[in-house]
Amino acid sequence: MNIQLSPIGTIQSPFKKPEGMPIQPTGAKDIRGQVIIERAFVEGLSDLDGFSHIILLYFFHHSKGYDLRVKPFMDNERRGLFSTRAPRRPNSIGLSIVRLLGLEGNVLQIQGVDILDGTPLLDIKPYVPKFDSVKTLSTGWLEKNAVKSETMRSDKRFQTS
Amino acid sequence: MNIQLSPIGTIQSPFKKPEGMPIQPTGAKDIRGQVIIERAFVEGLSDLDGFSHIILLYFFHHSKGYDLRVKPFMDNERRGLFSTRAPRRPNSIGLSIVRLLGLEGNVLQIQGVDILDGTPLLDIKPYVPKFDSVKTLSTGWLEKNAVKSETMRSDKRFQTS
Repeated sequence: MNIQLSPIGTIQSPFKKPEGMPIQPTGAKDIRGQVIIERAFVEGLSDLDGFSHIILLYFFHHSKGYDLRVKPFMDNERRGLFSTRAPRRPNSIGLSIVRLLGLEGNVLQIQGVDILDGTPLLDIKPYVPKFDSVKTLSTGWLEKNAVKSETMRSDKRFQTS
Repeated sequence: MNIQLSPIGTIQSPFKKPEGMPIQPTGAKDIRGQVIIERAFVEGLSDLDGFSHIILLYFFHHSKGYDLRVKPFMDNERRGLFSTRAPRRPNSIGLSIVRLLGLEGNVLQIQGVDILDGTPLLDIKPYVPKFDSVKTLSTGWLEKNAVKSETMRSDKRFQTS
């Protein structure tokens, strides 16, 4: 089964190359960016400005190939790929929850941006705590390590292009 | 730009048709299901069992086409598509946060399943509150309506096949 997707817009950010980026929105709290939506989809943005936070699904366009075990930025041990948020994946879909600051025409102003400039946007969903905020019982190898996401920056390990 | 994806597995659930389903995991708290991962990707599941909750990204394989304004299950007014979680989207990617009950070989036992049986799985990510749980300031038209997701079931409005 082959699934064909086509971007609905582009994410603009201050990050021009994968190296030295925040590795999660937690490390990019003050970073602002824009999402430029293709004109054909603008009508679908109605009512979105009522939401303070949105989920962006996008394509890691700089990621090619993948390894099933990876050494994540936040740990020194190799971990199963699906227990990490590494960009190089069989289907390299990225997910970021960002603050929606404003919406005018086909341009969204966003904050908390840990996304590479020029990233193709696949979908926007409203962030709703009732659906999306979950009380976990355990967070595996990230239990002690997630806090590192506030200060840690990416290096070259996930670059292939 | 065309992006080609290929499923990494299949989600099994008690829901054999789109009608009468819970519309969010909040309405499917006790519903159990399984994820069957393609053998080629099993190694990537290591360390995942340390996480109590996981994010499933999947393809709404029964959704064809889309409208940019839709009447969501939880409201009577037409809303911009991207302010809703409707399955018919330009890129019909679904997102559910489910409880991971167990992992053995290539089979994940999951709970809180609001997903149609046979749904192609695109990606698994660990759910990490530090990254994924956000305090919102506003949730737009869903402010009063999200609670309906606990009891509401789908009807035929998003079926096209």
